[in-house]
Amino acid sequence: MNVLWVFAHPEPRSLNGALRDHGTATLRRHGHRVRHSDLYAMRWNPVAGPADVAHDPREPLRLGPATEHARATGALAPDIRAEHAKLDWADTLILQFPLWWHGMPAILKGWFDRVFVQGYAFGVHDAEGRARRYGDGGLTGHRALVVTTAGARATGLGPRGVHGDAEDVLFPLLHGTLFYSGMDVLPPLVITGADRAGPAEHARAAARLDDRLTALPTAAPIPYRPERGGGYDDDLVLRPDLAPGRTDLAVHRT
Amino acid sequence: MNVLWVFAHPEPRSLNGALRDHGTATLRRHGHRVRHSDLYAMRWNPVAGPADVAHDPREPLRLGPATEHARATGALAPDIRAEHAKLDWADTLILQFPLWWHGMPAILKGWFDRVFVQGYAFGVHDAEGRARRYGDGGLTGHRALVVTTAGARATGLGPRGVHGDAEDVLFPLLHGTLFYSGMDVLPPLVITGADRAGPAEHARAAARLDDRLTALPTAAPIPYRPERGGGYDDDLVLRPDLAPGRTDLAVHRT
Repeated sequence: MNVLWVFAHPEPRSLNGALRDHGTATLRRHGHRVRHSDLYAMRWNPVAGPADVAHDPREPLRLGPATEHARATGALAPDIRAEHAKLDWADTLILQFPLWWHGMPAILKGWFDRVFVQGYAFGVHDAEGRARRYGDGGLTGHRALVVTTAGARATGLGPRGVHGDAEDVLFPLLHGTLFYSGMDVLPPLVITGADRAGPAEHARAAARLDDRLTALPTAAPIPYRPERGGGYDDDLVLRPDLAPGRTDLAVHRT
Repeated sequence: MNVLWVFAHPEPRSLNGALRDHGTATLRRHGHRVRHSDLYAMRWNPVAGPADVAHDPREPLRLGPATEHARATGALAPDIRAEHAKLDWADTLILQFPLWWHGMPAILKGWFDRVFVQGYAFGVHDAEGRARRYGDGGLTGHRALVVTTAGARATGLGPRGVHGDAEDVLFPLLHGTLFYSGMDVLPPLVITGADRAGPAEHARAAARLDDRLTALPTAAPIPYRPERGGGYDDDLVLRPDLAPGRTDLAVHRT
């Protein structure tokens, strides 16, 4: 497999840094190719804005159409184009980050804001002009694995835990971004108690990561319902006969 | 009221820009004081890292303790201190942004990453050493209103909609950040169909915003359960007799 490993932690001498190095070695030992986007090391700019496109400041900026046009004409910022080239090379995406305020660090959120542009990861249409999204889209053919560390204990990020279940908290990324753009999304690896982890917990986290990386080519993705053929009506609402009476996020899984 | 309005849109000549100006005028007409953090105009740096603190690069960076120490010793970066001064002045926080990839633009996510530091918005303890969070914390006494625009249509962001219900999609912000740090969190104002909005939709959005701003001092917050006294056990899991048998995010509301 061709794996793009996107890493968003400010300190390589951390549990996250150790897991990234360990996981990269594991993948290579299994014969996979690995490239990295180490966002802090790259000094990645996470702020989407007029500098991403050849924008005429006399006109109001509409970022979606502007980035789509810039991409089509080769005028998209070089750092974004470089990430597109990596994504086009890769068939697998690993996103590794510490969970900050129950989401991605800004530097990684802004990787999506700037790289997942209109016409590439959203606003993609088929020959009949229908939107391709949720289970089909610009990133179809990629699988994605989220690896995140949290200071919280496991129970607090589990079912009925005070922080919300990790898969629900990560829904905007797992479903609303990765599945939206057509990827197969594997269950996330959530390493809890990271703030208090000693050598034994580090070793256990590395072993859990190894298991997930070994299974990467064959693991079953989260069974999210595709937008087309998955049971949504013309208003994009799930048909009443599916998961009847429920309104929780898990209705979007089969 | 003293309102801090945090605005995260790259284009003032947009629906978002018009709503911000309109809402500011409404608040002032009602006798409230308003200050702004216009993150794009300020060229806010959203990347939390060693430059936020007086960090010795020979030592591994542990951002939580490092920022807490820097704040205590006056060594926190001046732009963060300026936001703390605004928050200390304010009793009300308005967060306005376009919904990008089902979350905040990176520039706003990084406002939380950098401003909501340990000892200020998390890792705050009472006299007995117990964590103050979820309904009590460093930002207790503030109320918060989220105003967001989305390209999606309303049904898709409603119950059983393909994108997930807006309050669930925003759970990491509403519950995991704002309520976590002790604020009273009002139901968000979600303006859908923003990509296709003409003058009539703009006027309707402004009227909806006016209604919410007029009710700002008295509106009932989302009835999230507080961590302490709200029915969580010592593992931070909701007691089985509350919302029995359910595992959705709404169990965290009374």
